[in-house]
Amino acid sequence: MKAEIITIGDEILIGQIIDTNSQWIGQQLNKIGVSVYQISSIQDNKQHILDAFKEAQERVDIVIITGGLGPTKDDITKKTIAEFFKDDALVEYPEVIAHIKGLFQKMKHPFREIQKTQAQIPSKATLLMNKFGTAPGMWFYENETVFVSLPGVPYEMKGLITNEVLPRIQEQFKLPFIIHKTIMTYGQGESTIAEKIEDFENNLPSSIKLAYLPSYGRVRLRLSTKGENKAQLEAELNAKVAELYQLLPDIITGLDDDASLEKRVGALLKTKNKTICTAESITGGKIAATLVSIAGSSAYYKGSIVAYAAETKMNLLDVSEETIKKHSVVSKEVALEMAKGAKEKLQTNYAIAVTGNAGPTTDKNDKSLGLVYIAVVGDDHQFVEAFNFGQPREKVINRTVSKSLEILQKEIL
Amino acid sequence: MKAEIITIGDEILIGQIIDTNSQWIGQQLNKIGVSVYQISSIQDNKQHILDAFKEAQERVDIVIITGGLGPTKDDITKKTIAEFFKDDALVEYPEVIAHIKGLFQKMKHPFREIQKTQAQIPSKATLLMNKFGTAPGMWFYENETVFVSLPGVPYEMKGLITNEVLPRIQEQFKLPFIIHKTIMTYGQGESTIAEKIEDFENNLPSSIKLAYLPSYGRVRLRLSTKGENKAQLEAELNAKVAELYQLLPDIITGLDDDASLEKRVGALLKTKNKTICTAESITGGKIAATLVSIAGSSAYYKGSIVAYAAETKMNLLDVSEETIKKHSVVSKEVALEMAKGAKEKLQTNYAIAVTGNAGPTTDKNDKSLGLVYIAVVGDDHQFVEAFNFGQPREKVINRTVSKSLEILQKEIL
Repeated sequence: MKAEIITIGDEILIGQIIDTNSQWIGQQLNKIGVSVYQISSIQDNKQHILDAFKEAQERVDIVIITGGLGPTKDDITKKTIAEFFKDDALVEYPEVIAHIKGLFQKMKHPFREIQKTQAQIPSKATLLMNKFGTAPGMWFYENETVFVSLPGVPYEMKGLITNEVLPRIQEQFKLPFIIHKTIMTYGQGESTIAEKIEDFENNLPSSIKLAYLPSYGRVRLRLSTKGENKAQLEAELNAKVAELYQLLPDIITGLDDDASLEKRVGALLKTKNKTICTAESITGGKIAATLVSIAGSSAYYKGSIVAYAAETKMNLLDVSEETIKKHSVVSKEVALEMAKGAKEKLQTNYAIAVTGNAGPTTDKNDKSLGLVYIAVVGDDHQFVEAFNFGQPREKVINRTVSKSLEILQKEIL
Repeated sequence: MKAEIITIGDEILIGQIIDTNSQWIGQQLNKIGVSVYQISSIQDNKQHILDAFKEAQERVDIVIITGGLGPTKDDITKKTIAEFFKDDALVEYPEVIAHIKGLFQKMKHPFREIQKTQAQIPSKATLLMNKFGTAPGMWFYENETVFVSLPGVPYEMKGLITNEVLPRIQEQFKLPFIIHKTIMTYGQGESTIAEKIEDFENNLPSSIKLAYLPSYGRVRLRLSTKGENKAQLEAELNAKVAELYQLLPDIITGLDDDASLEKRVGALLKTKNKTICTAESITGGKIAATLVSIAGSSAYYKGSIVAYAAETKMNLLDVSEETIKKHSVVSKEVALEMAKGAKEKLQTNYAIAVTGNAGPTTDKNDKSLGLVYIAVVGDDHQFVEAFNFGQPREKVINRTVSKSLEILQKEIL
């Protein structure tokens, strides 16, 4: 069972927005055993939409379309789908009108006639009620292909996929199981890893696919397989995972959802009943955001102080003016004082602090570009070290986040 | 001049990563007058890649390919491109080997033989040096179509696009000008706006395209045009923008890059020489991140306190225990005390504070789901109000960020 996701809207093509919808839809389809074969982002243009529908119909069994369902003139998806299915008749659904009126009342906006068009869909479509918005979803089935059209607003699309689309796909098709196991490794490059697991890779059965996903000091290894017997697939992949653990004993931090350092560090803090806070300059809150991204983080994460200016480092984190004058804000000494200040203020067991120069411009008082000091202070041990993450800015910030969590993990253990 | 962006890698299709590369490439191509006609994300599969190349060649003049250039076995882009162009001969570039050795030396990793394959590219390709990584870019020109193959690592891809690809496109093709003007509006829905500008929209010349981009309480109106005479295009669009300002006098906050509330608020604070800080619970630092996303924000943004736990609100923001007990953490009183606490601690002219219940689960001590209190405290005026942003969680958080900045702007003015 193969699917294609088609997103309609010039805003993606000119780079005005990032297509996050497709990622989420890809995840959901994979979970129920549907492979996403292609994602296509196309223009708000009738002929282009018709061409894309036709190509997709030849490639896949399920086409999920998002965008272009608003009430304004630039939204042409509904009209174009009707043309594609040669469906001239629009059916108006009173329950959708009632729902739209309810939404407008709640927001204290007047109901407008233009909204009525939102309640009309082609006669060949099955209505998919949109609880969170005005444009309903539509489900078509013709020539053994399913076409689903959904609004592009993320939370509306998500509600429709979860409540309407996935249950219908599961009901109407016999689906295989798609299993992925992703192993997280830290500290070695992909070519080094590839050399170490060369025999393993050469001996993998053709039903199992191995992928390397490098990013900022981490390499994820993904094993994927597909089939009818879930227990057997799981057993096969687990055996391969066990082999990798033996081949790469030092660098694997975990598996699948537990693989990220932030999850692992979170689990460690929870088990040991310890708490953490951060004091961030160069990363502007990104270490905090990474820690907080884990559900249940409120059990060990207390808060964060984002201190950009030297003045804020002094006022909020009690970094001394002398230390800054003597060593500059990008220094081992300031990183340590920031961590100690945060730990004191937030009364935690651990504090991470980072200060550095991400670039791209150099301040003549700062040391070299890409230089970062990371400090981790615990109840009875402290660590501080300089790193140079080079350039560009984005890499410096992301590697600082990864490296901080790596150090924190070592300090906790 | 039309382009297609092809991203190769199962990780995008199974939703393991978000395709941010295409957005950035789309922006860059637009700036030099190249329209992105389609973005296609496809599998790491030889036949699928060959099919996609063929389809793209029929649709567009320039094909930009990212991904699949690593040294490991799952990276098949280079081999497949060579097959597509019927090019059997690989050429090894000594300067690339020297560059890779230099990179490995700097990171204190040993150079491995497998890396040598990175320095070999098909004989029909022009080499594009990759300053930030090991895999060079490749430029092909055949049958009046340009094919450019780039690594998928974002900062490597960005370096190659900026330094190698864009200059070559500009040198080899005569390009038109593509002009977009985006007007930001706050506080009215797209259907209300569409009704107000109906005549305007009906009278737009066919060369100018209007798009509505709604998101979380903001609607952006984008006018786009394309042509040879830049001054004339600019004048035409500016005249239309002026009309819109007249038709929608109350709700437009700005134009293009100055249109976002965070830019506008930043400019206001800078002009008035005032400073700001935030105290965030429900938004977990997102208001701070939004303010900090503006270059030069260090002139007015001093820092932020992310206070999740009630305890942190008391310790770091001096919220009183009695207030929390009497009114609960989701209350007008706590929001005000948070703002005052942050303003005092960070010594700023303004402070924004937010506390609320984003859901999805309800805490029985909390008031209803979706309820948010926003407080903005200035030197001699304070504001606090309750809002209910409904559900889901994502919408509550994003609307809280937008609404806070909207209130801040009013308070500053």
